[in-house]
Amino acid sequence: MNRGMTAKGLATRQRIVVAAALLIREKGAAETTLDDVRAATSTSKSQLFHYFPDGRIDMLVAVARHEADQVLEAQRPYLDELTTWESWQAWRKAVLRHYGELGRRCPLGSLTSELGKSSPEARTIVSDLFATWEAALLRGTGTLLSDRGAAVGCARSVLAAVQGGVVLLQVTDRVDYLEAALTSAIEPMRSAAAR
Amino acid sequence: MNRGMTAKGLATRQRIVVAAALLIREKGAAETTLDDVRAATSTSKSQLFHYFPDGRIDMLVAVARHEADQVLEAQRPYLDELTTWESWQAWRKAVLRHYGELGRRCPLGSLTSELGKSSPEARTIVSDLFATWEAALLRGTGTLLSDRGAAVGCARSVLAAVQGGVVLLQVTDRVDYLEAALTSAIEPMRSAAAR
Repeated sequence: MNRGMTAKGLATRQRIVVAAALLIREKGAAETTLDDVRAATSTSKSQLFHYFPDGRIDMLVAVARHEADQVLEAQRPYLDELTTWESWQAWRKAVLRHYGELGRRCPLGSLTSELGKSSPEARTIVSDLFATWEAALLRGTGTLLSDRGAAVGCARSVLAAVQGGVVLLQVTDRVDYLEAALTSAIEPMRSAAAR
Repeated sequence: MNRGMTAKGLATRQRIVVAAALLIREKGAAETTLDDVRAATSTSKSQLFHYFPDGRIDMLVAVARHEADQVLEAQRPYLDELTTWESWQAWRKAVLRHYGELGRRCPLGSLTSELGKSSPEARTIVSDLFATWEAALLRGTGTLLSDRGAAVGCARSVLAAVQGGVVLLQVTDRVDYLEAALTSAIEPMRSAAAR
């Protein structure tokens, strides 16, 4: 996709993606136009089309990819070192802080629903995100739980706990569901670490 | 809303809502027009506007209300008698069967995103659903867990487990996440019932 782009070109493109992501967090993907992004980044129309040849959809896909990365970034470094009970607790706090700050906003959800559930690119970005996320959780549960089936089940229920807690945060504006769901889902790691 | 409608009128309206709900399950809310509903129910335009004076939005709201009821219906009778470990297991099976059948379809999600997240009616239908659902779960966890905080936390994490499992079912087309999340979330009731 970025074939032949210089380092400077890539940096400019990234700057536009980050600015567009901020705009979309505020206004929602459906309400954000290329003109809004142009104004916010002081770029020309031809510059935008240079970086996003297919226009708005191209840019939304790039922002969705960026937001998917942000989901994982918000959990780091803990996500990559979930081998002790302390790191699971620190990870849980990072997740709560991240989604507490976002509140009712769900940048990736806004983007994928604007791109359309049937958009193959949006689907791939979301499935890739979940696959990477699940693999990282499984490295942690697999270290602490000796039974492989239990480790797999635990990683899956932790992942589901985050998604469900965030759905309920968006509907109720309360973080309590995410708190309770995470506490319950990581509980097996507490007992395992104590052994 | 149904003030002054005869029993026969109410029955006809309900027949239209049920037929529209089936159509929307197949095609999605965004793709379903009043004409589709008219054709599927053999009703006239004036009949439809008699039952849904504000037209398509009015009908979508009625279908959303119906689908919210279906979410709870699918869990009955177990949802109302979650006082034993056996009933929690039966409830879990009913939830898995229901969402396994729906697969990637999420009728209520399709309706609320078509009505717009900002639509006050759609928001109220969804919050009311979650409030009723949580209260029913809490009656069950409250019977089995003597600690009130634990009962509240457990009801919340069970509710989040369902939502998260369904989100992951829609993305991955696999019911494994819902299975694992429910197993983990209802685990405290197994130990409590054994005491």
